[in-house]
Amino acid sequence: MSPSSIAFYGASNNPMKMGTMQLANLLESGYRGEVYPIHPREERVMGLPAYRSLEEVGKPVDMAQLVIPTRLVPSVLEECGRNGVRHAIIISGGFGETMSEEGRRLEREVLDVARRYGIRFLGPNCVGVQNASCPLNTTTMPEPPFGGGVAIASQSGAYTSMLNPYLRAQGMRIRQTISVGNEADIDLVDCLEYFAGQEEVRAIGLYVEAVRRPRRFIATARRVVARKPVVAVYVGGNEAGSRSSLTHTGAVSGPDWLYDGLFRQAGIIRADDMDCMADYLWALSTQPLPPGERMAVVTNSGGPGTSLAYHLEKAGMSVPAFSLRLQERLRELTSPMTTVCNPVDITFETNIYIYKQLVEAAFESGEVDGAFLYGVFGAADIGVNIKKRMPELAPLEKAWDEKFLAFLPELAEVPARHGKPLLVMSFLGTGSATVRTLVESDQPVFSSASRAVRAMQCLLRYREVRRSLADRESEGLSVTTLARP
Amino acid sequence: MSPSSIAFYGASNNPMKMGTMQLANLLESGYRGEVYPIHPREERVMGLPAYRSLEEVGKPVDMAQLVIPTRLVPSVLEECGRNGVRHAIIISGGFGETMSEEGRRLEREVLDVARRYGIRFLGPNCVGVQNASCPLNTTTMPEPPFGGGVAIASQSGAYTSMLNPYLRAQGMRIRQTISVGNEADIDLVDCLEYFAGQEEVRAIGLYVEAVRRPRRFIATARRVVARKPVVAVYVGGNEAGSRSSLTHTGAVSGPDWLYDGLFRQAGIIRADDMDCMADYLWALSTQPLPPGERMAVVTNSGGPGTSLAYHLEKAGMSVPAFSLRLQERLRELTSPMTTVCNPVDITFETNIYIYKQLVEAAFESGEVDGAFLYGVFGAADIGVNIKKRMPELAPLEKAWDEKFLAFLPELAEVPARHGKPLLVMSFLGTGSATVRTLVESDQPVFSSASRAVRAMQCLLRYREVRRSLADRESEGLSVTTLARP
Repeated sequence: MSPSSIAFYGASNNPMKMGTMQLANLLESGYRGEVYPIHPREERVMGLPAYRSLEEVGKPVDMAQLVIPTRLVPSVLEECGRNGVRHAIIISGGFGETMSEEGRRLEREVLDVARRYGIRFLGPNCVGVQNASCPLNTTTMPEPPFGGGVAIASQSGAYTSMLNPYLRAQGMRIRQTISVGNEADIDLVDCLEYFAGQEEVRAIGLYVEAVRRPRRFIATARRVVARKPVVAVYVGGNEAGSRSSLTHTGAVSGPDWLYDGLFRQAGIIRADDMDCMADYLWALSTQPLPPGERMAVVTNSGGPGTSLAYHLEKAGMSVPAFSLRLQERLRELTSPMTTVCNPVDITFETNIYIYKQLVEAAFESGEVDGAFLYGVFGAADIGVNIKKRMPELAPLEKAWDEKFLAFLPELAEVPARHGKPLLVMSFLGTGSATVRTLVESDQPVFSSASRAVRAMQCLLRYREVRRSLADRESEGLSVTTLARP
Repeated sequence: MSPSSIAFYGASNNPMKMGTMQLANLLESGYRGEVYPIHPREERVMGLPAYRSLEEVGKPVDMAQLVIPTRLVPSVLEECGRNGVRHAIIISGGFGETMSEEGRRLEREVLDVARRYGIRFLGPNCVGVQNASCPLNTTTMPEPPFGGGVAIASQSGAYTSMLNPYLRAQGMRIRQTISVGNEADIDLVDCLEYFAGQEEVRAIGLYVEAVRRPRRFIATARRVVARKPVVAVYVGGNEAGSRSSLTHTGAVSGPDWLYDGLFRQAGIIRADDMDCMADYLWALSTQPLPPGERMAVVTNSGGPGTSLAYHLEKAGMSVPAFSLRLQERLRELTSPMTTVCNPVDITFETNIYIYKQLVEAAFESGEVDGAFLYGVFGAADIGVNIKKRMPELAPLEKAWDEKFLAFLPELAEVPARHGKPLLVMSFLGTGSATVRTLVESDQPVFSSASRAVRAMQCLLRYREVRRSLADRESEGLSVTTLARP
């Protein structure tokens, strides 16, 4: 994840080759270590001096990346081992996942070489890693990861590197990704252990087509989830999924019920798909856990308020009618048109501080354990045409908007200060400075009621996971002992 | 939806007022008719000459928009009636939705005035309409609608106008929206009838907190869905949702099971939330209906391919293993690394025509009824860093990319030519020229496997709705007769 130097096998000056794309991405990722392209003929690769072999480099190299024809992988890894390289990313495919005798034999050979030299490696058949903390991007996708507290390990390459544009468009950030490929050496269990030790990682996601070491997986996960939440997507659980999975990573999957049980035992929260997992991880990595299931809904529009209330109750949470005392308090803060019962519907309102005031009043009352907001707009969001039609007001609108944007980070601090989660719903997306400011302040913003609600549901589930682990501990049964094979 | 002229009550030169915002949006929407601001004191409003009253306008006016204090609404509507205005949008709230005797009385008074003069009106307590065909935007949200074949009528204002940025960010387009508010006069049934007659509208969405005329609603919907699909979101079905709904539009809702039955009788497809409805409408308004449930999956990456296969089977569709004959055909088109069974996984591939060739081969075989694609990238998507590192190749990359973008509309024509739907999955979003070109060619692109699959599921459901209507017709029972009260 943080190599001090990299030998790169398989990049050339042909832009249509995967190795070339990956080297370009590595060089543009901000990586600060030395990079040595190794090429049999080229003098220079992408402007860097190229070497015939590691011997020619003549300096210690920390890691090697291999994007070369399958049959060459064992001998090149051998060269790496001889020259003191102890870490490798093997991008090349054509191994166990082809289900052929030859592919399996080559994968065993690669593993033998690695064991002989004490090399730990990712893959084969993977896209490598991304690490915003290094920074480093070894993958085929140009966009590097960009921070935050989420890490993902995945049996699909696309579900690491390719996710970035999606996450960025939503306003989510990702810290580290690992594509494990065929897991001949490093597997999901190793990734869990690694992420657990990374201070910046606050929530972990896994994309799973098959768990290869179920006992170790469960034992490790149980230790990890006591400190950090783990969410998994599993898609090998039916005929079509398992057939596809088999040709993808060569992994033998099991039925959905088996994996449901496995994840439950492991304390891992299952997500239906990657977008759902992203929503879960966003909330888990930024919000405190709700002490209970009572939720406040604050909105400036009936539809989103009603939708949030409906989905909350459907998901087993409650939207309790506020006490008269709290209603009176809210009444003091709002206009006469406001419904103060819960949902609180402020309709049209130009006091930019109102949302924070209302959420804090609800939190302070002790009547709710979390809150939802819809309707956080700035002048830049809804005043565009005013500015066009009334240019003389532009300075006023601008001042209002700047004040609003400066205030939003304060709103985003409410959850931590009160120890209760706050989730925002908005259709504006990261095209809006309002949403950008919120998400950069680690305030998740979801584009629908059901997405915001499922994220809160996940926070509650993780609270349950923590509780049930704590219960077992207090029964005198060590979690680690219990789960170890 | 297409007034020839508009009298606007309630806009001023104060930018913090809702009326002012709405007038600015109206004027910037491209509306081509005359607009007459009516104001008791101002000489000019937003640069336009202002009038004291309709009498002062002295010309026939087609529609009035009222954004004024509740108690003034009846008398202003009276003025409209006296001066020949026969259409109105009443934005003002404070009527029946307040649940107060006074509010209800005022709403009845408004209705009485309207009946007396033959005025048809939207609201009160709504945000009006948007119509890309006019063009016209009477709402508080600056962004006008932008085309396509989708229309939405909604008991929530936010779920019409505010949706635009979300839809645009996804690449979806919307033709018309109607916010019905309290439905004192025009209601969802009227909207259904209107949309049914609009040639450009190919799919209809409804946001429902309560259906006020259930028999007429069912009868009308059954006639409409024989020609155009209707999708509805309903959120009044539990305690929290119905309590919130009551204070929002004053509508009395019913339990989920009742509305499930109502929608089923009406031939309406229910969606869980607005984002789900948008996915449904996107597919319904652009894709042919699948003749059956057998789906092809073509991908360049195992994770998305496996996820699509898993979610398809989970949703009751099949991903049949292709015949040896079809596999041979696909083998001719692809590299030896390709898995050709279904999912077809082409792994790394630089032939830009490959996806079209594979989907067409699958469609022509008769072995599938629809298809999914993951992995449609251009050089602009994944070659960014190559261009930075190898500037000498920029012209080549540019040429490749232009060729690719020019080809994409051909890919988008495949569904219509073969009478089978094609859904694309991509994480790139509309930040990518590839995705922009596809969506502008009416090719839906979804950001997750489960979203793409639910959209296909909706196409199948609509096929079922059409079939069951046709069955009843052939049994000699007229659909219309059956359903009429």
